[in-house]
Amino acid sequence: MLEDKNKERTSLEKLGEFELIDHLTQHFTLNHPSSLKGVGDDAAVLDFQHKKTVLSTDLLVEGVHFDLSYMPLKHLGYKSVMVNLSDIYAMNAKATQITVSLAVSNRFPLEALEELYAGIHLACKTYNVDMIGGDTTSSKTGMLISVTALGEAEEDKITYRSGAKENDLLVVSGDLGGAYMGLQVLEREKEVFKVNPNNQPDLEPYSYIVERQLKPEARKDIVELLEKLEVTPTSMIDISDGLSSEILHLCKNSEVGCALYENKIPLDPTVISTCEEFKMDGTMIALSGGEDYELLFTIDQADFPKIKGNPNLTVIGHMTDKSGGANLVTRAETLIPLKAQGWNSFQSE
Amino acid sequence: MLEDKNKERTSLEKLGEFELIDHLTQHFTLNHPSSLKGVGDDAAVLDFQHKKTVLSTDLLVEGVHFDLSYMPLKHLGYKSVMVNLSDIYAMNAKATQITVSLAVSNRFPLEALEELYAGIHLACKTYNVDMIGGDTTSSKTGMLISVTALGEAEEDKITYRSGAKENDLLVVSGDLGGAYMGLQVLEREKEVFKVNPNNQPDLEPYSYIVERQLKPEARKDIVELLEKLEVTPTSMIDISDGLSSEILHLCKNSEVGCALYENKIPLDPTVISTCEEFKMDGTMIALSGGEDYELLFTIDQADFPKIKGNPNLTVIGHMTDKSGGANLVTRAETLIPLKAQGWNSFQSE
Repeated sequence: MLEDKNKERTSLEKLGEFELIDHLTQHFTLNHPSSLKGVGDDAAVLDFQHKKTVLSTDLLVEGVHFDLSYMPLKHLGYKSVMVNLSDIYAMNAKATQITVSLAVSNRFPLEALEELYAGIHLACKTYNVDMIGGDTTSSKTGMLISVTALGEAEEDKITYRSGAKENDLLVVSGDLGGAYMGLQVLEREKEVFKVNPNNQPDLEPYSYIVERQLKPEARKDIVELLEKLEVTPTSMIDISDGLSSEILHLCKNSEVGCALYENKIPLDPTVISTCEEFKMDGTMIALSGGEDYELLFTIDQADFPKIKGNPNLTVIGHMTDKSGGANLVTRAETLIPLKAQGWNSFQSE
Repeated sequence: MLEDKNKERTSLEKLGEFELIDHLTQHFTLNHPSSLKGVGDDAAVLDFQHKKTVLSTDLLVEGVHFDLSYMPLKHLGYKSVMVNLSDIYAMNAKATQITVSLAVSNRFPLEALEELYAGIHLACKTYNVDMIGGDTTSSKTGMLISVTALGEAEEDKITYRSGAKENDLLVVSGDLGGAYMGLQVLEREKEVFKVNPNNQPDLEPYSYIVERQLKPEARKDIVELLEKLEVTPTSMIDISDGLSSEILHLCKNSEVGCALYENKIPLDPTVISTCEEFKMDGTMIALSGGEDYELLFTIDQADFPKIKGNPNLTVIGHMTDKSGGANLVTRAETLIPLKAQGWNSFQSE
């Protein structure tokens, strides 16, 4: 549905590479004092002064990370920025700039790329991030987006994966499993559509989880909240691959163990009901689902009163001695070792 | 020839994404004081202190930017770094870090990626650049490499495209057209190989230009030379798309015109002889060939004594009033307006 079937659309072949970049980036303005020069020279020029620079990069590949049959291009643009900003926020830093590189086959008309950049523009505006560069080229087949995000932070505020200590509390923002269950719903509707293209799907009951999949938000607000609460996490990571995998990263890098309480894992009612419908286990989905882009962090127990009762944050466990390993404490109070692909993965080991 | 026909090779499917990144980046060390944290967290952490940060990014796509039938993977890794460092040097900055993101189909065995990273490693070592991050993912078809390079510079040393003034001298490093003619030779040998796979090509007479294509070097040495000579260019750009296109960028951004002297354009004897063999015009190749990764810059006339006679630098023209436009002054002393695709392009306008 997104291919160039409409002959009135503008072919990319008609535009040169420079004109294409100029056209797509014309509405972007530089708003950060650290952005001295953006698009238009051999390199961007930045000035972070006394602050440290943080930098992260991600590739999104059509057919691997996204499916254009249900992912609108504007959402894809937005999401590709979110995925990267999430990594900056996971350092407890302020996101300031991005670069976006794009490889596309010429089956996409200019108007499709305008949609994509509209999503990128919206993300930049909403999160106050400057677009400072990128590259645009043709590809032999599908679309590929490479985003690099930059941010800034005072050195003593930066949170690594390696700072968790025994007895620290394990905290997660928001709720988990929504993005994965949204994907299940979208995949099911895609199959229904293939059989009967006239069937109009009713996604209304699933709107929360479909939005979690198609339009995730990076938790800038949590970084700001932590600053306001005067809490500096001892370690932090964003949840892109599922809670289980991220906990194991914190444990490995910090050389600690962990007790994660199953009954504390925050699940939205829509996730619970959709899991029932799909005969899936909510805990497993939260542990292995991925793409939630929530923040997972540890805090010193002394900071607990500062976060207690905050509706955005849930204490889901605590860090333990390394020798005990990382475990899920189930509702039945049995211990199950966490695995990178989820504690109940179907993959062979 | 690079596909996984040998069953003893290690399939990428056997390795997880994290293990793959760990494996490929294990030999990289951080050498710059500005690299506080590299691979292994949500983001890298950098500290440029009082200096400005410069940043550039490029995508290289299989079948568009490189052909693995004659491009060894180690060379490809090396070249993908050079392309980006060249942009940093074009800002008159010191390159300090890179990130490398890679999308590959699983037709590539691990050993192929090790070759690619061996080239990246060599480039980092030779140019004293730290590898600080990246992303590795599967692709549905070929290979795609996205490199972001960072550098640092004192603010008053940074050279933009926009600083050229009327009467400034136009200077180029090295010689031009080699990479393009090397590509012509390689493309011809590929056709010969298709007809007769037993035919062993003799590339010896073309070794200079083949190396210019397969293993270009970014001109770090020129940035260092300019510092030593105490010359700060008024504007600078690297030559990736051909001399003509780059001159037009300088003219447009600086709002000046240019007189480029055909008889001053530096051509290596191998380029001249190969052009004769292919019945091509050396001037046209220099103007439109691209991929030379030399530096093109303008200097104040007062700085001419400092660069005079330096074998690495050639004065090829001067900047003029904007109204005169950008022109090639031919050997016959006629003026031909420069065009982005070369003054004698076969493309329709």
